[in-house]
Amino acid sequence: MSGLYHPDFLLRTEAARRLYHEYAEGKPIIDYHCHLPVKEIAEDRRFDNLAQIWLGGDHYKWRAMRSCGVPERFITGDSSDWEKFLAWSRVFPKTIRHPLFHWTILELANPFGITDRYLGGDTAESIWNRCNELLAGDGFSARGLMTRMNVKVVCTTDDPADRLEAHRRLAEEYEKGLFGIRVLPTFRPDKALPLGAVTEDGARAYQAYLEKLGRTADRSIRSLDDLLDALAARHEAFHRLGGRLADHGFALFDFDENASFERAGSAFASLVGGGAISPEEARVISSIVLLRCARLHAQRRWTMQLHIGAIRDNSTRVYRAVGPDAGCDSILDGAYMRPLSRFLDRLDGEDALPKTIVYNLNPASNYPLASMIANFSRDFPGKMQYGAAWWFLDQFDGMRRQLETVSTMGLLSLFVGMLTDSRSFLSYTRHEYFRRILCDLLGREMEEGLLPNDFDWIGSIVEDIAHRNAENYFGF
Amino acid sequence: MSGLYHPDFLLRTEAARRLYHEYAEGKPIIDYHCHLPVKEIAEDRRFDNLAQIWLGGDHYKWRAMRSCGVPERFITGDSSDWEKFLAWSRVFPKTIRHPLFHWTILELANPFGITDRYLGGDTAESIWNRCNELLAGDGFSARGLMTRMNVKVVCTTDDPADRLEAHRRLAEEYEKGLFGIRVLPTFRPDKALPLGAVTEDGARAYQAYLEKLGRTADRSIRSLDDLLDALAARHEAFHRLGGRLADHGFALFDFDENASFERAGSAFASLVGGGAISPEEARVISSIVLLRCARLHAQRRWTMQLHIGAIRDNSTRVYRAVGPDAGCDSILDGAYMRPLSRFLDRLDGEDALPKTIVYNLNPASNYPLASMIANFSRDFPGKMQYGAAWWFLDQFDGMRRQLETVSTMGLLSLFVGMLTDSRSFLSYTRHEYFRRILCDLLGREMEEGLLPNDFDWIGSIVEDIAHRNAENYFGF
Amino acid sequence: MSGLYHPDFLLRTEAARRLYHEYAEGKPIIDYHCHLPVKEIAEDRRFDNLAQIWLGGDHYKWRAMRSCGVPERFITGDSSDWEKFLAWSRVFPKTIRHPLFHWTILELANPFGITDRYLGGDTAESIWNRCNELLAGDGFSARGLMTRMNVKVVCTTDDPADRLEAHRRLAEEYEKGLFGIRVLPTFRPDKALPLGAVTEDGARAYQAYLEKLGRTADRSIRSLDDLLDALAARHEAFHRLGGRLADHGFALFDFDENASFERAGSAFASLVGGGAISPEEARVISSIVLLRCARLHAQRRWTMQLHIGAIRDNSTRVYRAVGPDAGCDSILDGAYMRPLSRFLDRLDGEDALPKTIVYNLNPASNYPLASMIANFSRDFPGKMQYGAAWWFLDQFDGMRRQLETVSTMGLLSLFVGMLTDSRSFLSYTRHEYFRRILCDLLGREMEEGLLPNDFDWIGSIVEDIAHRNAENYFGF
Repeated sequence: MSGLYHPDFLLRTEAARRLYHEYAEGKPIIDYHCHLPVKEIAEDRRFDNLAQIWLGGDHYKWRAMRSCGVPERFITGDSSDWEKFLAWSRVFPKTIRHPLFHWTILELANPFGITDRYLGGDTAESIWNRCNELLAGDGFSARGLMTRMNVKVVCTTDDPADRLEAHRRLAEEYEKGLFGIRVLPTFRPDKALPLGAVTEDGARAYQAYLEKLGRTADRSIRSLDDLLDALAARHEAFHRLGGRLADHGFALFDFDENASFERAGSAFASLVGGGAISPEEARVISSIVLLRCARLHAQRRWTMQLHIGAIRDNSTRVYRAVGPDAGCDSILDGAYMRPLSRFLDRLDGEDALPKTIVYNLNPASNYPLASMIANFSRDFPGKMQYGAAWWFLDQFDGMRRQLETVSTMGLLSLFVGMLTDSRSFLSYTRHEYFRRILCDLLGREMEEGLLPNDFDWIGSIVEDIAHRNAENYFGF
Repeated sequence: MSGLYHPDFLLRTEAARRLYHEYAEGKPIIDYHCHLPVKEIAEDRRFDNLAQIWLGGDHYKWRAMRSCGVPERFITGDSSDWEKFLAWSRVFPKTIRHPLFHWTILELANPFGITDRYLGGDTAESIWNRCNELLAGDGFSARGLMTRMNVKVVCTTDDPADRLEAHRRLAEEYEKGLFGIRVLPTFRPDKALPLGAVTEDGARAYQAYLEKLGRTADRSIRSLDDLLDALAARHEAFHRLGGRLADHGFALFDFDENASFERAGSAFASLVGGGAISPEEARVISSIVLLRCARLHAQRRWTMQLHIGAIRDNSTRVYRAVGPDAGCDSILDGAYMRPLSRFLDRLDGEDALPKTIVYNLNPASNYPLASMIANFSRDFPGKMQYGAAWWFLDQFDGMRRQLETVSTMGLLSLFVGMLTDSRSFLSYTRHEYFRRILCDLLGREMEEGLLPNDFDWIGSIVEDIAHRNAENYFGF
Repeated sequence: MSGLYHPDFLLRTEAARRLYHEYAEGKPIIDYHCHLPVKEIAEDRRFDNLAQIWLGGDHYKWRAMRSCGVPERFITGDSSDWEKFLAWSRVFPKTIRHPLFHWTILELANPFGITDRYLGGDTAESIWNRCNELLAGDGFSARGLMTRMNVKVVCTTDDPADRLEAHRRLAEEYEKGLFGIRVLPTFRPDKALPLGAVTEDGARAYQAYLEKLGRTADRSIRSLDDLLDALAARHEAFHRLGGRLADHGFALFDFDENASFERAGSAFASLVGGGAISPEEARVISSIVLLRCARLHAQRRWTMQLHIGAIRDNSTRVYRAVGPDAGCDSILDGAYMRPLSRFLDRLDGEDALPKTIVYNLNPASNYPLASMIANFSRDFPGKMQYGAAWWFLDQFDGMRRQLETVSTMGLLSLFVGMLTDSRSFLSYTRHEYFRRILCDLLGREMEEGLLPNDFDWIGSIVEDIAHRNAENYFGF
């Protein structure tokens, strides 16, 4: 029996192999955007079994399992861990050409060393036993896995209302030399934008959020000024704990360039005082909040991330049963370059445009978006970044398309590279996957005479993209 | 002289050749969506010459001929069949890299066995004579061609107002064992949606349609309830004759989630009573009719097809001279994921979402659409299908892009595969074309180490996609 | 030291090499769309140094330099030519995989013969000296370069308000046999469409333009009729000087099919009489002006070009400092097939649809647009052209995608081929780049059995696309 993984996996030319093994393999991982549960790092969580670390929260697998007709009880329901794992194992052979196919192979190979067989109904038990054995031993706890994968920095994703207690513990341990990986918070104030407050339920949820934020920020939020002050206070707290990135998520990016503070303030008052607001009012408030956040990012030389293009929670049934992030999100279509232009230009005109990374989900927007942000490049190399392939695009074709886009619309050599965007401690092979694909692409072009056959030159760019650009860019 | 076709046509690796010849070649054809004239099957039409079977109704060829400046009389006018064929033959060498180039080569090879020359002004006469000779012999009638190509099931496309008399004859013959191919009707009620009734002409055409439908359904249609009842009656009639699919065509999919039956009913009354309605009223009625149809499909475990993205009859001049489907349709741009989400979610919430296949015409929508439908997967394998490459996309690049999309956004292994979507008895090689492209893609990835080099595994997926998934999915 | 360029650059198969060297290399250049300063041709400008001819006005390089953090003074500021050139030289090694990388290599190779080294900080001085030496000698003036590159026709881009004095001189020289290259004006009346007159500033600029146009056309423009008459007079003047093309640029193409002359006339009156008009009024006037222009093009058998999809001057800061065309334009997203359909159909119905070439900037529109224009093909071969890859798309991937689009949605064999769209006398290698990519594509498909292995057939198509189609199409 033999599997797909081997040292030259995906490296289809001699030049690709050389680039990968000499310039990319084993290089440090700067995972500047993920959704790891920071508490589990702080507690150095251990995992009872492979299902816990591999299936819990993995909406990609859930989605594939639903497509195969697996009943929900084996996905998010009350089946045992083993039953869930077995159900997933039986689905795996059906995932040929799906991102999960390569991801799974990579994750079993690294860190578990399973490269001699494919996952399947027949191999499920042997893989289950082997992985569980490893998980029980040293080096497979949350921190053990991060160390094993040569992770240097991890940026989690955090709400301003979060008290960041786990981050504080981790920062102290880092300073005392007790744990060598930096784990930093990312400021993600999506809930502070009242885009959902257009229904009574949404308005109530927003008011509840304001209370929570107010408690964390130690003030009561009654006006738009209060909100902005609370966010500024939390921004400072994030900064003190080493936070250097923010993140903002949007369906479409519909910034209102004519939003005035006055309009936003009175709409905010009516939202705080009573019930739902109109979509237009929500947009006005959100535009003002977003501008203020961006100015804070610029002041503190942070990097602003924009994630654009997901339409979430499409299935009301699953949302009610499982909640958000349950595998029922997808790619939104639609145009948004005009408002994005106005937003970036406004900030640039104020000298308040932070370093910016945009990630988009709809490949039809790749070229427009990457060309748009480059309009605002200046000051230092790679300020405006077209971000790594994200979510549905984080796969063989999607990454190649992202590399094409960043190469032709921006400058590949300045790209800050890959991230996991993951909730799982097993996702670090995503960096390996990306590096292999990058080297495969460049190596082939070297051999075909499209690129210089100069390993110093191209290899150095590989190293830059693998980790050096990120190390220089974020200023951790 | 030698042509392009040979047994390994398009199969560029050894693995591809093995996959095709061992797992795909000659497998049964389940042609679950086409536009064949059912009467010609029932009558087992014979064709006088190659122009009759190959050019009449083929708007792809018409379009290419117009692009080459061929006068309309040689296209849809009153020239002789030979003159039209000669005109097309002279255009053919200009179609290098156009879908027609490969299609033509495949169609001449199979069933006509012409593989030693290319069509052209110089070969037109010899090809004309040879094909006409064959067409005059046995085995080249409508049924003969279907049998020769190993067709097992054909689903035609039919209006609810159609009495299905030819289908009834064919069903009887099938049951008596007189003709072994199942020819089943597909319920396509596009004309029952008054989207065109926004002009006086459109309103009149709609009223005429209601009368026709009423006659077939044996009732008069005066209210929206009447319409829905008539459609339900016809739905049942289609089902009794073996129909298991429906089809709905849209420019953009602009379902109105707030459409109420009351609003729709009163708009319908004003349409029946008088003249044109507003676009918004048309949309409300259409949303209600569509929901009702979908519920019927779900109740009878049918498959619902949605064809989205054609902008039709762009040339008024050609429409007046030749009518619809004359080669003046093209790909519409624009966003529609939000309303599609609301439509699918509404049905899913009622447990009334049928098995669904969506086909889109704009490649920019591939990823959003394929990711959207997967939000509603459940119950059984492959319920939500991202359909085969359609119309302008039914070609080398388009099919590869469809395979990429279905692989990364859905699950390739569950794909129900190709269909002809054709008006011609010569189009069955479209299945061969698809199978060759599929095997070429998978075979190369096997050889390059992207897929397991396991012919049982990958070959079985090829067989599934070639015919077994379709056999299992539709429940004929 | 060796560089990337050699005779078989980009030609990755034997068939590709044969196609290029036998059918494409050195063929005449019909550069039917560019932005060369005609005055410099008339004066046969000589260039003091490489920066003058290569960096001045090259917003692609400016953009890349800004992305690398180069201060604006080395880009568009008051640094010396040498300093600017050195700054660009240091950026070049960072442009791996960006269009500038191959473009630069081609431009240094041809006409400067520099193929043994790459541009970089270390080679900047040697390249500077060598090129300046050549530029000082014979054959490197404006006309010298055009002659050296085998250019036969050049169509510049000109405003109707331009008096065309340089064109007149050049036409006289051509007729007297003093200069063998035809340099023809292209009618580009974008400023006559008051799309920007929706602000006070915009309205004033429009009024100033009307005065200028009136002076050139020798009449005063007080009404819409006056404007249309002035444009008609200028159209005739362009025609007399050999102009056979027009060009119209749009962000999105939002033609108003219901625009009436009366509405447009009264909106125009209020614009002339006073201040800003509404966007809707601007659109109505523009639709009427555009229709009238198109009819003129058709009457004189001109070719109408439509450039669609740029969002310009996104950075207000750079616009104020440097002006338009400063490297802060990008790709606009959004839908426009419906209004484009109505525009083309309206003209086609009047028998007033000219030969048309559409260029789009957003690759997501490739298929919709190419399929849309083909709806209106008739009369003579290749009337409706899907134009060459433009601006951001004029690169390796973009050209391949354009070739795919024109092949599958139109007919590749009828394509009128490449153009430079350039402001620089060094851009003629763009034709070489295109021809190499075309031959690489076709040659590979010949070797893989996707195309006939017939050099007469495919080679003839290469020649057609390289220059013969353009020679036949435009009727110079």
